[in-house]
Amino acid sequence: MTGLSAQIAADILARVRQARPRVHCLMNTVVQKFTADGITVIGGLPSMTGSLEEVESFVARADALTVNLGTLDAERRAAIRLGVAVARAQGKPWIVDPVHCDYSPSRLAFAQELIALRPTVVRGNRAEMALIGETPGILRIVTGPVDRLQVGHSCVEIANGHPFMAQVTGTGCLSGGVIAAFLAAEPDALAAAGSALAVTGVAAELAASRAQGPGTFAPLFLDALAAVGEADILPLARIHHDQHDLIGRR
Amino acid sequence: MTGLSAQIAADILARVRQARPRVHCLMNTVVQKFTADGITVIGGLPSMTGSLEEVESFVARADALTVNLGTLDAERRAAIRLGVAVARAQGKPWIVDPVHCDYSPSRLAFAQELIALRPTVVRGNRAEMALIGETPGILRIVTGPVDRLQVGHSCVEIANGHPFMAQVTGTGCLSGGVIAAFLAAEPDALAAAGSALAVTGVAAELAASRAQGPGTFAPLFLDALAAVGEADILPLARIHHDQHDLIGRR
Amino acid sequence: MTGLSAQIAADILARVRQARPRVHCLMNTVVQKFTADGITVIGGLPSMTGSLEEVESFVARADALTVNLGTLDAERRAAIRLGVAVARAQGKPWIVDPVHCDYSPSRLAFAQELIALRPTVVRGNRAEMALIGETPGILRIVTGPVDRLQVGHSCVEIANGHPFMAQVTGTGCLSGGVIAAFLAAEPDALAAAGSALAVTGVAAELAASRAQGPGTFAPLFLDALAAVGEADILPLARIHHDQHDLIGRR
Repeated sequence: MTGLSAQIAADILARVRQARPRVHCLMNTVVQKFTADGITVIGGLPSMTGSLEEVESFVARADALTVNLGTLDAERRAAIRLGVAVARAQGKPWIVDPVHCDYSPSRLAFAQELIALRPTVVRGNRAEMALIGETPGILRIVTGPVDRLQVGHSCVEIANGHPFMAQVTGTGCLSGGVIAAFLAAEPDALAAAGSALAVTGVAAELAASRAQGPGTFAPLFLDALAAVGEADILPLARIHHDQHDLIGRR
Repeated sequence: MTGLSAQIAADILARVRQARPRVHCLMNTVVQKFTADGITVIGGLPSMTGSLEEVESFVARADALTVNLGTLDAERRAAIRLGVAVARAQGKPWIVDPVHCDYSPSRLAFAQELIALRPTVVRGNRAEMALIGETPGILRIVTGPVDRLQVGHSCVEIANGHPFMAQVTGTGCLSGGVIAAFLAAEPDALAAAGSALAVTGVAAELAASRAQGPGTFAPLFLDALAAVGEADILPLARIHHDQHDLIGRR
Repeated sequence: MTGLSAQIAADILARVRQARPRVHCLMNTVVQKFTADGITVIGGLPSMTGSLEEVESFVARADALTVNLGTLDAERRAAIRLGVAVARAQGKPWIVDPVHCDYSPSRLAFAQELIALRPTVVRGNRAEMALIGETPGILRIVTGPVDRLQVGHSCVEIANGHPFMAQVTGTGCLSGGVIAAFLAAEPDALAAAGSALAVTGVAAELAASRAQGPGTFAPLFLDALAAVGEADILPLARIHHDQHDLIGRR
């Protein structure tokens, strides 16, 4: 394992900005622009089509895939299945966000179908991840005021971020896109995803200090993602290795 | 009837923030994020899926429904019919916004089909509402520089708001989502919708006083919706009871 | 030909604001709101539906059409074909933006099908336009740090804009919508499109001078589009007539 520290997070961010990874996003229509803007300003190249006839070409050109379960109908399910098949066949990292799988039995069933295909990462809030259950060998992220990342016996907590994030629709989806960009630049999933969450959370803290509320926070968050670097990450990243707590829970 | 005053508007807002009502939105793809952000910052919990396979579960979990006639195709019509059926069966308040029904005969026909199902509220601009015609027993809102609300013999005018609202796509849809949140917290439709429009209009005035133009107005409007409270509403709400004028018109 | 100068650009902008042209947009879901806001603040009236059952009514009421190849599935292709047929039958100006036609063979084929129908303008980046090839009699725009417009032997370069534009998803689509609004107000395609790009680029420069990054740039860009006028355009527009260079290339 690569390990994870503020320095490693800053280094992986620098590699993302140099590599400019292509991230294809299969997501709901609500937050496509915000997510695309987030991926762009952190240094990646987003694409968004969910058309069944185009997904194969776009995922084949991408370096990572993020799948977000919003607005699921039969065609979107088929497009996601195809995009995931291409990512798997080409060994590309992919992440699943089972948004609102606690609202609808059909979403939960589809989330479980995807997790059986072994994504690199699955991330959701506490309610969603409780329904998802165990995912041996897959990096699990439970988001919240403190994000908890776990794979095998390794466990890390990231205590960055700001309450404004919960008041802006799509910050979770944007974070998923940033994680995908980091997965494209770093093969260790825990190091990549933990770094992405620390960087995103530090940027949110910088933005919140300048914002007057959740509305002005959103554009300032994009500014901060574009500008954040080692000089911010080293003093502000709060990364806790949590081996002890993990053993205690078992 | 509950009545309507600046104090009542402030009280209903406080109840919305305490109750955190779930608002499901069946709307066009253009302004989903802006509407979701508006519902969130005023204190509600938005959901947005328009997938036929998911609408039933989402509306069943919601406290109110807002239906917005954008981008109507056969599947969206079916999803709206299903969502409305669930809301009606469960006695949940719902609001219809017949956006651009004056542009397309098929939209007007569908708007009239929905109004025959007796929504709690129908709201549109002058051109749209002229085509909709009479709606006995349903709260009618004609939006404009002054919003006019009418149900039976009761009529109220809300003279809050700012011209920037007309330059930002989606402020009307966002207002519809806020009305739905207020309908979930207050059973008197006129008191709920009038309060929602007064609160939204006061927030717009606060935001406009800080904005440099319609672009910066939008995030500041969300900030103001998050922060607005009794101390702003009492001096700024302009609510006019208009019994006399109504009789005069008849 | 009308010619093109900073004064002409300012004059066409003034005519757009007076005429308030209706612009129908057939585009991907990602940037619909940003594009609609841009068309509104420059002085036009946007509409966005891509539903097959509504396109005919909306294009028939529009003064110009912009077609953007995002998220192409069978129904969207059918809606675009129908919208283009209505625009052609009524002699309305229309513009095609072959977004990402270099990513997917099916997009490129569809872009070429549309160009065979002789749009008023086709615009794309260098990679996209290289694939599109020659378009005799159609105004070609190759976007980049300097935008190059060419039709027949006439060639103009617009050297306005700011690097933040490339970091905000949808500025190209927004520019396409502004070009469509200008085409509705000025029959000379080169004068109209060159003016639109000069005005948009000047607004971007004004916004960038106030922005802290690409996030805050976006709302400030809308502010600047709403406020930009002759007093900004005359000193700042950089319009180069490039007959010589064109001959040199042949």
